[in-house]
Amino acid sequence: MNIPLTLRILGALLIFLAVALLLPLPFSFYFEDGMAVHFFLSSLLSLVVGMFLLKAFDSEKELSIRDGFAVVTFSWLFYAAFGALPYLLSGTVSSPTDAFFETMSGFTTTGATILTKIEGMPESILLWRALTHWMGGMGIIVLSLAILPMLGVGGMQLFQAEVPGPTADRLKPRIQDTAKLLWGVYILLTAMEALLLMVGGMNLYEALCHAFATLATGGFSTRDASVAAFSNPFIDWVITFFMFLAGINFSLHYYALKGRIGEYFRNQECLFYVSITLVAIFLLMAFNHGKVYDSLADNLRFSAFQAVSILTTTGFGTADYELWPPATSCIFIFLMFVGGCAGSTGGGMKVARMLLLFKHARFQLYHLIHPRAVQLVKLGNAPVDREVMQSILGFFALFVAIFVFATFLMAGTGLDLVSAGSSVIATLGNIGPGLGLVGPTDNYAHILPFGKWVLIACMLCGRLELFTVLVLFFPSLWRK
Amino acid sequence: MNIPLTLRILGALLIFLAVALLLPLPFSFYFEDGMAVHFFLSSLLSLVVGMFLLKAFDSEKELSIRDGFAVVTFSWLFYAAFGALPYLLSGTVSSPTDAFFETMSGFTTTGATILTKIEGMPESILLWRALTHWMGGMGIIVLSLAILPMLGVGGMQLFQAEVPGPTADRLKPRIQDTAKLLWGVYILLTAMEALLLMVGGMNLYEALCHAFATLATGGFSTRDASVAAFSNPFIDWVITFFMFLAGINFSLHYYALKGRIGEYFRNQECLFYVSITLVAIFLLMAFNHGKVYDSLADNLRFSAFQAVSILTTTGFGTADYELWPPATSCIFIFLMFVGGCAGSTGGGMKVARMLLLFKHARFQLYHLIHPRAVQLVKLGNAPVDREVMQSILGFFALFVAIFVFATFLMAGTGLDLVSAGSSVIATLGNIGPGLGLVGPTDNYAHILPFGKWVLIACMLCGRLELFTVLVLFFPSLWRK
Repeated sequence: MNIPLTLRILGALLIFLAVALLLPLPFSFYFEDGMAVHFFLSSLLSLVVGMFLLKAFDSEKELSIRDGFAVVTFSWLFYAAFGALPYLLSGTVSSPTDAFFETMSGFTTTGATILTKIEGMPESILLWRALTHWMGGMGIIVLSLAILPMLGVGGMQLFQAEVPGPTADRLKPRIQDTAKLLWGVYILLTAMEALLLMVGGMNLYEALCHAFATLATGGFSTRDASVAAFSNPFIDWVITFFMFLAGINFSLHYYALKGRIGEYFRNQECLFYVSITLVAIFLLMAFNHGKVYDSLADNLRFSAFQAVSILTTTGFGTADYELWPPATSCIFIFLMFVGGCAGSTGGGMKVARMLLLFKHARFQLYHLIHPRAVQLVKLGNAPVDREVMQSILGFFALFVAIFVFATFLMAGTGLDLVSAGSSVIATLGNIGPGLGLVGPTDNYAHILPFGKWVLIACMLCGRLELFTVLVLFFPSLWRK
Repeated sequence: MNIPLTLRILGALLIFLAVALLLPLPFSFYFEDGMAVHFFLSSLLSLVVGMFLLKAFDSEKELSIRDGFAVVTFSWLFYAAFGALPYLLSGTVSSPTDAFFETMSGFTTTGATILTKIEGMPESILLWRALTHWMGGMGIIVLSLAILPMLGVGGMQLFQAEVPGPTADRLKPRIQDTAKLLWGVYILLTAMEALLLMVGGMNLYEALCHAFATLATGGFSTRDASVAAFSNPFIDWVITFFMFLAGINFSLHYYALKGRIGEYFRNQECLFYVSITLVAIFLLMAFNHGKVYDSLADNLRFSAFQAVSILTTTGFGTADYELWPPATSCIFIFLMFVGGCAGSTGGGMKVARMLLLFKHARFQLYHLIHPRAVQLVKLGNAPVDREVMQSILGFFALFVAIFVFATFLMAGTGLDLVSAGSSVIATLGNIGPGLGLVGPTDNYAHILPFGKWVLIACMLCGRLELFTVLVLFFPSLWRK
């Protein structure tokens, strides 16, 4: 592995983080919350370390695919470490484990929090918290549509080629160009949501924080009661709508903005995502009808919000879904495993993988009856390569294996089965809230330090599609 | 599909069942429990229907592979239906749903019971209940080592060829011959266990019932408190040992009886099975030490019994493991999913599949680092065909999908998450007891009828390796 070059790139990324750490400054001055000095110091520290890495290491060679795994994983680790500085320097979070947890939860767009009293926090700190989501989301879009397909991780190669339309019209292939186009869409949608939230009565600061957390499918709110605190149907629907958009492949939004709305309907993953959403909302409404909500409008509003919030792995809350009938918990757990579309900011296993697993099972049954029939699993009109299908099946098995192993570790810290299992899927799927002791009205402050580190590892593994992280444990990767 | 021939074969199998239904007669006479007439009537009914099917249908053609799916699935359904007659005619179980549940639980070697007071039941009925296990086990051995490999179900083709030793020395290939050899081993081991249990103090009747349930990895006991009722360390260890044997591929036992004990150690699945058992016992002991058991001997005895009972999917109990520390529940759930070795009477996903999933994940990570390396996943020294690996990955995905879907249905009947999920894995994995409301000290009597039918479907699907049953829902199978 090319360690000097990897460190150089991490240095450059830290300098970028140093700039980002200055963004909360205007808010700190406006709200006079006295945090400016801490952000300034954090920025300076990141800058110094970044400059050092950039200057101290040099390499003539190009970055190889192998190096990509280390760059991606360590960039998230470095960002979580340096992004935690404002919490630690200001003393708003005193434990390094907690600060690292909160920042990793931010950058992985998970939204699991260790804060027990959010409303007492300085505004600029909460804005930074929302910004970690938003920057994490930016990273994920590029990662899933440009970098991971190149690395060949977990079947993601499918989604580089999956950009719809005639070949001549492909998204410009180079990473930087892809990034610029998709980030344009991302910024535009964020601005639109923030504007609508202000129309709904939020101030600029809260509108920005919630828009950041929505588009990244993060879930950090500025209120203890999450979005429920606003108890405003307009705000609920705006957030529902933008969460739903954030769960869709961003290259489809790019085409839509270019006037080709039809691409949404030609994309099989997107159609399946819409179907899952509608079925989930319908089932939740059916279970809640007359038991939890008497009015159809309320039922639709809260069921839709919660279904979309969990499926897209955002994790905002407008209702305590643990008080809903028990079967709804199963629906939520299922949605947690599914997650958003590939190429969205959503986590989980991704809709396309679930769709392909379903098709594969159907294909295998068919194959038993017609052993000589030559047929391939297809996504849309394109046949899926066997190698890719095996990657996806392997991803699924690994996802479940990690889920089981981490749940065992969490139960080892004394948590009951439901809390242990749901804390793992809530972090491995980058959702945020789970069930039981980590339910929608709880937080992660009470988890033991060992458990917090297990969940931090889950967030990182889940966000980087497992393989990217696990491959680093192979000694042969590190050899020249 | 060749429906006449399928019905003919089912007829012949019913005549065999009619003979088996006479086996409890001597016990009924001895204990004077007045059940003889009911067994006689049940036998007669099976005989009449069997004869009718055999005479009414005729077919010139040979059985095709396609027909095999229907024969296998319907033979279990017919046996569960006609095997339920003694319960219903005698009135010992009044609800047809319950009687069908109990008999399906018997023939699938699950061991989940709807009986609330076992000790009050007529002895010959309990012997019949144990016999359903034992006959189910006989069916499974032949199914998994001779029939399913031919049908190509879920990677089972691996285990036909997997018989160890030089090719000239293979188990005779024809189904009948294979059956005869393996059944010889099965009967011998059953007799040995029954004898040892009598040495431990059981009477012939109880020794036979428990030996039947052990070798089949079933789990029906003649006592309400299961094996705990005997509170005899010798009996516990005898049952632990034979459960452990029942979880191993029976073709290995065949070789061992021929003097080739070394085959156990040359079989990678068997070695992995031993490792899982040892690690599970060690972990359970570590968690229980000082908290549940102070004496090391007691800790070993109860931890080993429960680990082996759950891993082999037998489901006998000597301790209420729900009172053990929460992390042990995770271990049990993991063991439930794993199950026994392929070619044993154990259920679950099978040790070989878990081993191959693990190897596949390792292979995929390796492949990311060395994309050009040509390497295949191996089991022992034999490379595993890609097609077979895909079958196994598909089996895993389908197993999890059915688990999730059935759990949702069970939660819909009002069960809490832990009870719903564990009732499904306890039946889908053919284990018996689960956690929560279907824990080791509970039973399935309280489950609503709809839930019972869901669990019956789980038992059948799990026992017949999923694909065998699901393929029947494809219309194209039924066409000529």
